[in-house]
Amino acid sequence: MIVQFTSTGLSVEEGGWFHRLLGFFDSVLRGVGQVMLQNNSYTGLLFLLGICCNSLLFGAAVALGTAVSSATAILLGVDRRLVRAGMFGFNGGLIAIALLFFLQPDALTWICVMFAAACSTVVMAALVSLLDVWKIPALTAPFVFTSSCFFLATARFGRLQSTHLLPTAGLPHGTTVEGIVTASTLTEGLFNGIAQVFFQENLISGVVFAAGLLIASRVACAAALAGSLVALLVAWGMGAAEPAIRAGAFGFNSVLVAIALGGVFFALNRVSIVYALLATIATPFIFSAVSAGLEPLGVPALTLPFVLVTWVFLFASKLFPELHAMQTWKT
Amino acid sequence: MIVQFTSTGLSVEEGGWFHRLLGFFDSVLRGVGQVMLQNNSYTGLLFLLGICCNSLLFGAAVALGTAVSSATAILLGVDRRLVRAGMFGFNGGLIAIALLFFLQPDALTWICVMFAAACSTVVMAALVSLLDVWKIPALTAPFVFTSSCFFLATARFGRLQSTHLLPTAGLPHGTTVEGIVTASTLTEGLFNGIAQVFFQENLISGVVFAAGLLIASRVACAAALAGSLVALLVAWGMGAAEPAIRAGAFGFNSVLVAIALGGVFFALNRVSIVYALLATIATPFIFSAVSAGLEPLGVPALTLPFVLVTWVFLFASKLFPELHAMQTWKT
Amino acid sequence: MIVQFTSTGLSVEEGGWFHRLLGFFDSVLRGVGQVMLQNNSYTGLLFLLGICCNSLLFGAAVALGTAVSSATAILLGVDRRLVRAGMFGFNGGLIAIALLFFLQPDALTWICVMFAAACSTVVMAALVSLLDVWKIPALTAPFVFTSSCFFLATARFGRLQSTHLLPTAGLPHGTTVEGIVTASTLTEGLFNGIAQVFFQENLISGVVFAAGLLIASRVACAAALAGSLVALLVAWGMGAAEPAIRAGAFGFNSVLVAIALGGVFFALNRVSIVYALLATIATPFIFSAVSAGLEPLGVPALTLPFVLVTWVFLFASKLFPELHAMQTWKT
Repeated sequence: MIVQFTSTGLSVEEGGWFHRLLGFFDSVLRGVGQVMLQNNSYTGLLFLLGICCNSLLFGAAVALGTAVSSATAILLGVDRRLVRAGMFGFNGGLIAIALLFFLQPDALTWICVMFAAACSTVVMAALVSLLDVWKIPALTAPFVFTSSCFFLATARFGRLQSTHLLPTAGLPHGTTVEGIVTASTLTEGLFNGIAQVFFQENLISGVVFAAGLLIASRVACAAALAGSLVALLVAWGMGAAEPAIRAGAFGFNSVLVAIALGGVFFALNRVSIVYALLATIATPFIFSAVSAGLEPLGVPALTLPFVLVTWVFLFASKLFPELHAMQTWKT
Repeated sequence: MIVQFTSTGLSVEEGGWFHRLLGFFDSVLRGVGQVMLQNNSYTGLLFLLGICCNSLLFGAAVALGTAVSSATAILLGVDRRLVRAGMFGFNGGLIAIALLFFLQPDALTWICVMFAAACSTVVMAALVSLLDVWKIPALTAPFVFTSSCFFLATARFGRLQSTHLLPTAGLPHGTTVEGIVTASTLTEGLFNGIAQVFFQENLISGVVFAAGLLIASRVACAAALAGSLVALLVAWGMGAAEPAIRAGAFGFNSVLVAIALGGVFFALNRVSIVYALLATIATPFIFSAVSAGLEPLGVPALTLPFVLVTWVFLFASKLFPELHAMQTWKT
Repeated sequence: MIVQFTSTGLSVEEGGWFHRLLGFFDSVLRGVGQVMLQNNSYTGLLFLLGICCNSLLFGAAVALGTAVSSATAILLGVDRRLVRAGMFGFNGGLIAIALLFFLQPDALTWICVMFAAACSTVVMAALVSLLDVWKIPALTAPFVFTSSCFFLATARFGRLQSTHLLPTAGLPHGTTVEGIVTASTLTEGLFNGIAQVFFQENLISGVVFAAGLLIASRVACAAALAGSLVALLVAWGMGAAEPAIRAGAFGFNSVLVAIALGGVFFALNRVSIVYALLATIATPFIFSAVSAGLEPLGVPALTLPFVLVTWVFLFASKLFPELHAMQTWKT
């Protein structure tokens, strides 16, 4: 679990209601920052800004989802330090965007967003408890599982209407190489890859997100850019469709894998860099596999490839003596 | 694991063959009772009666399946107290009904029933061993996994013939709201929801099952009724198809979740009631998702939604200090 | 984990480059032998010969894949004794054959073979770490997961071309009994079942593989033949398609289950033989289920049925006091 108490962190204590409210806002911002594994409220604020650049609706949704799942955690009595670090916020934030992106944004969907964000806290607690045996973090798995249930449930619930984006998640099913990759594909793809972590296909959002990362950690920012670039090149080399490459569809999972393995979970050294690179190269393959495997169910891959690759590389690291786990996720 | 030695329990000892036979009958009845998590032979007897109200065939099947899986456990040397508590019986009983419901009830299917019931004991032991790390019960997962394998195997084995019930499990795939929910939908749905735990779409069976629960525990009976009602209302509110609501298709998983979380695994208090309610509301969503997700494979959801929701809420409870686990499933 | 240091094993030590190279060849041969759970370099050599009888291409592929995954393990610093025992080789070897069998054998596929073999070492390490809690071996799960990802990825990567063998894995989808089983079906099926462990539908290969097993262990050889025979009879009795029975499609998973449970993981006694037989009978059902369940995704079952059945029967064995685990997989 990532519990880095940075210098910007207020102490977790019982104070007046104003102090508590301020603390809650801080938890929410850190929750938004934790979407890219950063326990930093300024980073969270920049991420929110980056989303609002593209869409105010999604900005509001992320804030609401993060707040609901954090509040649920507080009501259920979860250790306050975990809530304050944003650990019970980021999945709710992502669920909110995903549900509003793939379902019709009507009143019922907003109710579902709040219900799903509350449920994600229970799923997060379950995974924390399950994975505690190996000291492995839950990552965004609660977001993936909870959101996917709502997407699948549209098949039975007549009032839950999906948008046209759901069935194939915007990716053409190609057996031949489609489109020609140009310099503009690569430039747009590079920043869209970062922007797509929050489902925002927008260059500016990508740049603002990168700036948010830079505030928290130069290594994380460099890893994100490198991750997006590697994914672009692999997808291009393997003959993926040009529009999907440009949209950053292959990038966002690699961005998260690169941040996690290259910038957060391991101390940097020669072996850990090669290890993170191997994982980043494998991610577009896993994205393609997961995305194709879920297509018959009409469910998008979301960040499941990131979760799977990072879990495998974290579990495996215990057999590789050259890789040193950072203290931040050992407790 | 649920090992409640009620006052009706005979002691587990080596006696004469008649005493042993009596003990075995007691194990089988408790096994039937454990389908709704009740270690009570009178409850098991009433469940059997309730099934026979609807169908003598299914009554015989449940008894046979429970007996075969319990006997297999004894032959393999499983701790007698677990077998006596019915822990190695209920999955076999459910498998027997499920196979006779979804496959043509010919001689080969009856042989498969006995083989599958024996296998379910091994699957149960595997899950008990796996989940022992977290002290989490296996629930009806062995039934779900074993039955599903036989349903899938029909695609390769020409002599294993499915009934027309298998592909969509009786649920229409609706993108619009189908049918109008009336008072009779709700009344029938309420008791069908309980009856469907044993695949019996029959009001009287539902009433007899509720009576069986009442004998063992008033709380469990109330939880079952509340669970079925909540599921009805959620399914109605979300626009599910009226015939499915009336048939209790959305109810049986919620009934089991409500009994498990509301009446068996946690000490009753304000937080645990809200927690169980949250789980019960979530269950129709998970049922819809699992049912839609398995449809392309032609496999019904069975009680997988119950297993998933209960596992998540049990795992998660370790992070929530207000929830107190009952001693009965800690050992 | 299977770490049997047989009398043929060279000691693992730092020597000159020639000594090291010899050690590496030995690791590779043991890796090939471990495909059928035999830590024996002569067995590995005979397996290689058996493959080359049918196809030099596949022989070269197995050697390359085993070498790449073993070398990756050495570079990442895995305990040398595990590498020497072939534990980090067999998944790479199987991946190499599978990728060249189901994908067009062009230059890109050979690059993918090497990349996938390297990744399989990470997946293996992850599973070893995960399953260490229960002291359960990873078996060929890394091969199944890694290969399947590449097969699924063909849907998104235009340059990754599958052969016509992929979608249905050569198995007709039968609801009636197809073809008539004769003596020749049974004879060919018996040895093809063993040959198919390495994807070789070739009688001679099957005979050479059986000879390889005989060198390492008479029990393992007998178990393999019995496993193949049981699978044939079950598939025939259940009405499977004759061409699939003849090709050994139902056999290879049962062969592996029989070797694992009947010849490697448990001390032989009356209960363990019945237990292994139950598992071997269950395997064709699980094969049919997995194969049918994965068909909509266009992915073959590979050895997933073997992995699932063996895992279930190993996990379960802890509750059955008559089954004694061999020391070789307890450490």
